[in-house]
Amino acid sequence: MDTIGHHYIVEAAGCDPNVIGDANKIREIFLEAAKRGNMEVKASYFFKFSPMGVSGVVIVAESHISVHTWPEKGYAALDVYTCGENADPEKAVDYILEQFKAQYAHVSEIKRGIEEEDRTFTHTILTWEERLDRRNGKP
Amino acid sequence: MDTIGHHYIVEAAGCDPNVIGDANKIREIFLEAAKRGNMEVKASYFFKFSPMGVSGVVIVAESHISVHTWPEKGYAALDVYTCGENADPEKAVDYILEQFKAQYAHVSEIKRGIEEEDRTFTHTILTWEERLDRRNGKP
Repeated sequence: MDTIGHHYIVEAAGCDPNVIGDANKIREIFLEAAKRGNMEVKASYFFKFSPMGVSGVVIVAESHISVHTWPEKGYAALDVYTCGENADPEKAVDYILEQFKAQYAHVSEIKRGIEEEDRTFTHTILTWEERLDRRNGKP
Repeated sequence: MDTIGHHYIVEAAGCDPNVIGDANKIREIFLEAAKRGNMEVKASYFFKFSPMGVSGVVIVAESHISVHTWPEKGYAALDVYTCGENADPEKAVDYILEQFKAQYAHVSEIKRGIEEEDRTFTHTILTWEERLDRRNGKP
């Protein structure tokens, strides 16, 4: 498979603590996000911290979706990384942010696995910020 | 726990295909890397693709280590993301690159979860390149 991949690194703020504090809800959201983003799920793992916070990973073919959450801060550190032409990672990111009821996102899109002539590999980075309160509603 | 995290995004080139094509070897390397980086392992998952290539994730407390490999290209897309003061992600990255016998690395270190006054969160990025052939030897 081609080495090119698209990796979204997202700092999501103003998220609904009842969603990002619930490992089962996040699992459901991630599996649906993988489906919408046309990714083939290989395995998933979710872990609830005491007293709060969730870590979760879904392995999809040659890539992954992961999150670590701080419900007390409304903050989620989200990664969506996909390889191949068929996947649509942006759809997955949008769906997850909508379900988290995120109000604000700071995003870097990293294009990975760019092969140079000397068989080395590099990446490029594009960063932006989004206000999402109108789209996602208040949590 | 503090939201600040350090996320290393690494394009590793010139890796030994016999190492990065072997899911069991990568699992051993990752578990040892987590130990050296002072991270508490919660779960690990490794998947071998047909005919080649491995995806692997280790979940450590509130963060993760992941890799997707293309042995036929000597290429590995590596992530090491840790939160908290105790972890030393750079030690983990160095150990993994050494074990992969990587000859070259293009690295971005992303400082995540930086809280702003308005309760939003951002990240900052520092990118560099490293030649590793002298340190790691030829594969």
